[in-house]
Order: sequence, then structure tokens, then C-alpha cells
Amino acid sequence: METVLESKTKTVIIGPDRPLVIIGERINPTGRKQLAAEMAAGNYERVRADAIAQVEAGAHMLDVNAGIPMADEPAILAEAIEIVQSTVDVPISIDSSVVAALEAGLAVVEGKPVVNSVTGEEERLERVLPLIKKHGAAVIGISNDETGISHDPDERFAVAKKIVDAALDHGIPRADVLIDPLVLPAGAVPGAGWTTMQVTRRVREELGVNTVCGASNVSFGLPGRVVLNGTFLAMMVANGLTAAITNPVEPEIKGAIMAADVFMGYDENCVAWITATRVLEPEGAAGGRASRRRRREKRRSRRGELD
Amino acid sequence: METVLESKTKTVIIGPDRPLVIIGERINPTGRKQLAAEMAAGNYERVRADAIAQVEAGAHMLDVNAGIPMADEPAILAEAIEIVQSTVDVPISIDSSVVAALEAGLAVVEGKPVVNSVTGEEERLERVLPLIKKHGAAVIGISNDETGISHDPDERFAVAKKIVDAALDHGIPRADVLIDPLVLPAGAVPGAGWTTMQVTRRVREELGVNTVCGASNVSFGLPGRVVLNGTFLAMMVANGLTAAITNPVEPEIKGAIMAADVFMGYDENCVAWITATRVLEPEGAAGGRASRRRRREKRRSRRGELD
Repeated sequence: METVLESKTKTVIIGPDRPLVIIGERINPTGRKQLAAEMAAGNYERVRADAIAQVEAGAHMLDVNAGIPMADEPAILAEAIEIVQSTVDVPISIDSSVVAALEAGLAVVEGKPVVNSVTGEEERLERVLPLIKKHGAAVIGISNDETGISHDPDERFAVAKKIVDAALDHGIPRADVLIDPLVLPAGAVPGAGWTTMQVTRRVREELGVNTVCGASNVSFGLPGRVVLNGTFLAMMVANGLTAAITNPVEPEIKGAIMAADVFMGYDENCVAWITATRVLEPEGAAGGRASRRRRREKRRSRRGELD
Repeated sequence: METVLESKTKTVIIGPDRPLVIIGERINPTGRKQLAAEMAAGNYERVRADAIAQVEAGAHMLDVNAGIPMADEPAILAEAIEIVQSTVDVPISIDSSVVAALEAGLAVVEGKPVVNSVTGEEERLERVLPLIKKHGAAVIGISNDETGISHDPDERFAVAKKIVDAALDHGIPRADVLIDPLVLPAGAVPGAGWTTMQVTRRVREELGVNTVCGASNVSFGLPGRVVLNGTFLAMMVANGLTAAITNPVEPEIKGAIMAADVFMGYDENCVAWITATRVLEPEGAAGGRASRRRRREKRRSRRGELD
């Protein structure tokens, strides 16, 4: 099952047996006060810079969110999307919980976007799914409903199934539905990561749809977040995850995703890995840890000690 | 199913729903010319230092190998084991493909060790399993046989099952058999990591025995090996791996293992993770990348930009 998304000229395919699709998460004012203030004031310079930086770091798509308290979210989201697609040429994830904002985004977006997101709540499904159908977009269904986010993987799976069934009822093809299995902070909910991995595997095996996960939440409140986020994504890939909303600018996250692609056999001849390693560990670069490691490995290599 | 191993005074339990058991891999002259020369000459200073460093870095057990060409492997292995257990108090993995060396190791080892390893070859099973039974040890069965290492996960699983069945026939309890699902270099064999993950999951689900994996091989010939090895182990944990023969002295490997424990819910209240992060990213430490990251996060935090 392959989900095909498009920008003005580029196509991105999400599916099993392919490298994890990275959806850049940074264009989101939640918890970014300065960005929020700038976007509310019509200043999109940081949006533009974040778009460029994420695509340069390997984002295949960009999530765009304009959830700013007291602001005109539909207008700002539409403007941010226009700015982003005039800056970089990647498919867009239109991210809002406000239906009017999704409509405004869908009105200006080029190509075929994904709408992020619809929950399993009846009222949301009935409002969002017709929009998806009308615009021929794809949609991310997140596995919570009126009762909240269950800690039970079976209940989480049941909500995912309900969303897929509702989408099919609205005439949306199965390939255009992605499930976000939802992850709670591992620091607050023991085993939260494993619950999400189990849901991901079942969604792939039993519903046959693609999955996408926002990874940042899993490390909320813990130190060492980038290592946690990267490791979590690799573990999710090992359970069938096909796309992630994350920050590829962080080398630990990007590295873990690329390593996961190597082990799944998605990085043909390891070309992407070898190329990225050359960039991250340039021969002779002064200072950085990578180059210290390289020198240490060289010393060990001369001593015949490399594994 | 829990595998209980012992040193003179310490007990280590390998099992599902527990943190990954780390078996330090460094005391192994394969590819370490200097160590090989020293061990052959009766100089065990580096063995002693490697034992201490690995246990300090979090190894729960130590693998000891004395495979030196043209040397008296049984005598050296026995001596190395005696040195190690006089230096640190952790259970031993007696590592050799030479039956006489396994016998020599078993004769001197204290507590209850694991023997690493027996293959699925009939002749090996018939020679090694009686030794295991006689000494009340545990054993690692590696899933290859007379026909070599299969690329087909079903064949790999069939060999694992054959080893478990043979061990039971010899009166060895199921809890004392660990399966090494074997991993080939991902750079040479596309999808090698995924094959091994599938075997690991089936061994756990269908045979109910614990698994142990030597992770270094997976990155052979590729750059960025420590990131690859750490990521691979996390992906293996996400498929049920219970122990790993690896190098905990490498922070990327140790970090990935600890993060995996967090997400599986094995690190209660994330105490181990939080403690290790404090050690790895000490407040106010000058220079290192961790401290640069901390300063950057602080700046971003002041700007209200942390995710």
C-alpha cells in the first residue's frame, strides 16, 4: 500500500519497503514563543529559514502548523503554506485541529497534501473526511477518540480501525489514510513506547495502511531528548513505521533514521548512509567529536585494534 | 522464561520484561593484534583493564575469547577467565569454537557461565551439549548449521528450533538455552538486519527462549559503526532481544541500549537513563559536545523555543 503525495513538481511515496519518509516538524509555533509572535505579526522569515534548513537536512515533506492562541489561524496557516511552497518544493502536511484552518490550507496548497489530522471522534470524522474526499488529499488519523488516549494497545488499534473504516465509507482510498498510533511521554507512562510499537505493527499487518508518528512527545520531560527520539524512531521502523514527523536537523535523529533504513534494507548499497557519514565526519575536519573519533579509530587501527 | 547466570557472588537474569543484558565483547583477540600478542605471551594487563572498563561502563557479564592462531587456546582461555574473575565479579561467557577450550574454561570458571557457542551442526551439538549438561551451564546456540548461514529467516529459525530441541533432549532446561539469531554485515547483505529481527521475534514467540546477539558484525565494512551498532541493538530490542554481546564503553551503543530500555518500560521511572544522562552531560563541564548541546538548549529554552 503506497501513499502518493505531491508538491508542485515533486512526488513523495510513503510505503513499506521504502526509506522512512521524514516530515519536518519545526514549522510549528507550539512551544516556540518567538516563532509564534513573528507568525502572528506576519513575519515569516523564520518559517522560510526552517523550511530550507529542514529540507537541506533531509526532510521529504514539511508539516506546517499555525496554532497560535488568539490569532487568525486559518489566515496564518494559509499564508505560511504559501510561503513554504514558494521557498521549497516538497509536499505539505497541513497541521491543525481547527477545521476552518484545514479548509484555508487546502484552498492554497499545491499538489496533493496530507491533512494532519483527524481523530476517531464521530463529530471530527464527519467534518474532516468530506474535506479530504473533496480535495483528493491524504489524511492522518490519530488513534484517540471521545474517551481520550487509551493505554491499551487493543483499544488504540480499535480506534485506528474505526478511522480507516470511516474514511473508506467516505470514498477515500485506503492508500490515502495514514494512522498515527500516538505516543505518550515515556517518562510519565512506563512502556508507552512499546504500546505504540505494538499498535504500529498491528495497523500495518491487519489494516494494511501506512503509519506516521510524531516522535518528540515520547521524550517529553526527559534529558537527552534527541538520542531518545532517534532511538525511538528506529525501534518504530523495526515495527513497520513508514513516516515520521520529526526534526531531521538534529544529527542524532537523522542518523538513527538512516541507520534504521540500512538495517531494513531500504538504503540500497548503503549509499545514503555512506554519503551522510562522509558529510558528518569529514576527513581532516578540525575540532568536532566526529573528527576526534576518526583520529582515535586511526590510532586504534594502526595498533591493529579495530574490531 | 528467565536465564539465571552467576559469578562468584553476583546473579544476572536474562529475560523478557527486563533491561537488555550487556555482555562485554572486548576481551577477544580477533582483530586485535596487540591483545593477541600479549595474551599469547602471558601478559593479561590489557585483559584486566578491558574487564574493568567494560564493567564500569555497564557490562553485566563479560565474554572471554582466546582465539589466537598457533597458540594454546585452552590454556590461554582458562588463564584469561581466571584473570577476569579475579578482577571483576560478573558472570562469564566462555567464547570458543574449540571444544577443548570450552572444557578448560568450564573447569576454572566460578558460578554459572554461558558457553558461547554451539551451532546447529550435528557433530557440534553432540560434543558440546553433554558438556553443558555436565557443568550445569547455559549455552548460546547460533542459528547456522552444515549448510552455512541462511539468508532465509525461516531456515534460520528452523536451525534455532533444532538446537533448542537437541538441548532439551540432552536434559538441558529450555531456560538455559539462548539463541543467537546471527547477523550478517548489512553493507554486504541488503536487509540482513531485518532478517535477524524477524528470526529474533519468532524465536521469542514460538520457542519461548531468550536471545542474544553479537552486534558488531552488522556494521562490518561501513563507516559510522558505533551509531549503526547502537541503532541495530535498539531495533533488535524492539523485536524481543534479551541480551547483546557488544561494547558498552562506546557511548552511542550504551545510549541506544538505555533508550531502548526506556521505551520498552524496562527502566523503572527512567532512573538509569536520567542518571546516565547526568554523567554523560555534566552540568558546566567544559568543551564536550554534550555541554555545547546543553548550553544551546538553555539558550533556546530562554527564548521559549524548546519543543
